[in-house]
Amino acid sequence: MLSNTVKEKIISIVSPANFDDSKTGRLVYSYDATPNFQSMPDAVVSPRNKQEVSQVVKLCNEFQIPIVPRGSGTNLCAGTCPTEGGIVLLFKHMNKILEVDEENLTATVQPGVVTLDLIHAVEPKGLFYPPDPSSMKISTIGGNINENSGGLRGLKYGVTRDYVIGLEAVLPNGDIITTGGKLAKDVAGYDFTRLLVGSEGTLAVITEATLKLIPMPETKQTMLALYQDLEAAAKSVSKIIASKIIPATLEFLDQPTLKVVEDFAKIGLPTDVKAVLLIEQDGPREVVERDMARIAEVCKEEKAVSVQLAQTEAEAEALRTARRSALSALARLAPTTILEDATVPRSEIARMVNAINGIAEKYDLNICTFGHAGDGNLHPTCATDSRNHDEMERVEKAFAEIFEKAIEFGGTITGEHGVGVMKAPYLELKLGEAGIAAMKAVKMALDPNNIMNPGKVFAKDSRKRVVV
Amino acid sequence: MLSNTVKEKIISIVSPANFDDSKTGRLVYSYDATPNFQSMPDAVVSPRNKQEVSQVVKLCNEFQIPIVPRGSGTNLCAGTCPTEGGIVLLFKHMNKILEVDEENLTATVQPGVVTLDLIHAVEPKGLFYPPDPSSMKISTIGGNINENSGGLRGLKYGVTRDYVIGLEAVLPNGDIITTGGKLAKDVAGYDFTRLLVGSEGTLAVITEATLKLIPMPETKQTMLALYQDLEAAAKSVSKIIASKIIPATLEFLDQPTLKVVEDFAKIGLPTDVKAVLLIEQDGPREVVERDMARIAEVCKEEKAVSVQLAQTEAEAEALRTARRSALSALARLAPTTILEDATVPRSEIARMVNAINGIAEKYDLNICTFGHAGDGNLHPTCATDSRNHDEMERVEKAFAEIFEKAIEFGGTITGEHGVGVMKAPYLELKLGEAGIAAMKAVKMALDPNNIMNPGKVFAKDSRKRVVV
Repeated sequence: MLSNTVKEKIISIVSPANFDDSKTGRLVYSYDATPNFQSMPDAVVSPRNKQEVSQVVKLCNEFQIPIVPRGSGTNLCAGTCPTEGGIVLLFKHMNKILEVDEENLTATVQPGVVTLDLIHAVEPKGLFYPPDPSSMKISTIGGNINENSGGLRGLKYGVTRDYVIGLEAVLPNGDIITTGGKLAKDVAGYDFTRLLVGSEGTLAVITEATLKLIPMPETKQTMLALYQDLEAAAKSVSKIIASKIIPATLEFLDQPTLKVVEDFAKIGLPTDVKAVLLIEQDGPREVVERDMARIAEVCKEEKAVSVQLAQTEAEAEALRTARRSALSALARLAPTTILEDATVPRSEIARMVNAINGIAEKYDLNICTFGHAGDGNLHPTCATDSRNHDEMERVEKAFAEIFEKAIEFGGTITGEHGVGVMKAPYLELKLGEAGIAAMKAVKMALDPNNIMNPGKVFAKDSRKRVVV
Repeated sequence: MLSNTVKEKIISIVSPANFDDSKTGRLVYSYDATPNFQSMPDAVVSPRNKQEVSQVVKLCNEFQIPIVPRGSGTNLCAGTCPTEGGIVLLFKHMNKILEVDEENLTATVQPGVVTLDLIHAVEPKGLFYPPDPSSMKISTIGGNINENSGGLRGLKYGVTRDYVIGLEAVLPNGDIITTGGKLAKDVAGYDFTRLLVGSEGTLAVITEATLKLIPMPETKQTMLALYQDLEAAAKSVSKIIASKIIPATLEFLDQPTLKVVEDFAKIGLPTDVKAVLLIEQDGPREVVERDMARIAEVCKEEKAVSVQLAQTEAEAEALRTARRSALSALARLAPTTILEDATVPRSEIARMVNAINGIAEKYDLNICTFGHAGDGNLHPTCATDSRNHDEMERVEKAFAEIFEKAIEFGGTITGEHGVGVMKAPYLELKLGEAGIAAMKAVKMALDPNNIMNPGKVFAKDSRKRVVV
């Protein structure tokens, strides 16, 4: 609960209309896309500009009130659940595309801009903002920056981090800093731009971003390769890249995922095969045609039972949309959907898929696997029911083993979803004690009162794993 | 001076052969490529592996002895001058390419590997490591990482930061940490990989790096566009990119630079024009041909007096080599060469070149300008004499004005050379007081005893600017 003093002070900064501590208002922001971490904030605050953000942060620092900056809450690591109360900071007023600079190929945006709106805004100018998380229709750039979101085009084009070249941010002490700029190169001091990208709101509040754009690729082709053998599909992935072709998209869906997605999207996906690869290449027409022909060859050499090129853009878009709908589709299976993103070097995809299937069997769980195979970034997804305590115990153990396997194969516990609350207990698997201590030192240096999204990234010793 | 205790302890770690505190030995490492910051270390130490690095660092931390990690000392910010004494750490034993992984497209290397050796090692496998600082024949990967080095291919391919995907490093407390891995994506915790890249040896000692490789472009073409009008050359740069073409290389040389380089390299460079652009495109043949034709058109529209395509690879290589030799060539002009790298948004290149020329005239100085025009990264270079105090005062004032102009145009004080000692007094221009305070907080959190390359990045209040 906020004291009356604090409440009045916040209202005097943001105006009464932008402060909400009603039960309903708080309930709306008590959860995000991650199951089982619901927790009530004390208030929901919507600042209108960076000065207001700065004043609110300074006040929260003084009174040691947690701040949870939040975009659309589509993250999958409970990164925006107000697990320690405090205020949820919304950016509904700070949602403008401030500039698209066609000479420097940059966009300057406020954090509340919806990802797809930005992509659409630059398209007519022949420009391209590649990061495309599956939630891009509703996710915001601010959220994408905090989580360093990936997407289907990550293999060729990289992730959000690769497109953020400048930031304006409010530090926990209320200071407003700017980093980078419309600059292809900048080595003036530590790379705070990239330190803040992916810091999950635990170091600062992003109030503006300068994003790099690239020329829109001329053309794109989309292909489905079908397999009766999981391992053959996985091997195709590394063989395509070892052939020196970097496709724009190289996605994997196993049979259980395919069935569920087809049932949801009804676009005629094959459901009688063990796995498919959704492959896209973009660029100049002649290059795309050559690459796709070579990719088709590789897939056939690796025992694809069929390789089909989408014949129209509508067909291609249907395939992409189907892939993007995987989480929504899987979510219909059972009351609780746990979607993970253990990531391995791409050479280890086949071993990892096998390991996941073995673990699912061992714990008698229904785990579907899909994901960004080209990035080694898999999404093993478990349809379960959080009310079934016995099953949840097994889910917990299974995912712990999956993370351990990923690390054993040279991978990481999260490729693009972030650590949040959910994966905090596993972070040490990847970073070791020394790595965690170093990160904590940075956190404490910038946020000594631990007001910025507390409870995220760093685990409490007592924390129970995954979900309880 | 190291105490006998410390000396004996270091020798017991690295063996007597790898410890040198002779006057000659120390003299060799008392300077780097930056004029006027010579300063003697107390000893030169060459550890043989990460454990030895860790033990030496721990010892230095205990006894508060400065550590200056050093590659080949080719940096231009006095980043490796032991201005506060202590030990210089060499990596002559840690200079192996440990692995080139053709399936994951990565190389794993020790810090002492020479940049060009790595480039040559991966080439026969059809792979490409793009960062190519002009000093790449002798610079090391460790040095490149610490300085986040750029190069001629930065426009299209980015800089060192964009290719470092994993690090092993020793923190000031002696802890060995690993970050990232052979992973296209990893969001497990703060981005320490990129925090360490470009941190100029002030946060940790890099002991191993995992680098991203990309497929070698099929073909490359090289072009010279000649101008009798500086501004026309500069405008061509932004117009090429605004036409949605990102050349691999887009370099600018003004007439004074051209004359000096031709005198040095003798390859028949035109010296009767006001400026040239050296333009390269790589990729599939048909794309390169189309892009180069379009680039030639743009240059002609922008009043290039001549556009010449290199007819052979030997001719192209001569042009690139000439460009890379600019610093060496300019260094022959006068006893002291001050090479800077103020950087602006590329749309501001014309204004910046004009501003530099105006400032040179105002202070009656001989300033040549060349650089990575496509990146907005210019190298105004002053041939001077550090013994001429009157002139050095003017040089100092001129560069201060150049940095201020760069900031005014939305730029930065350093695009690729780093801050080091030399530009520390100007860092606040770019970051502001709050930005510096935040970076200092991170520095102090990881290196509370300030043993890691002290005096670099952060200015002492009393410090005189540029050179004294």
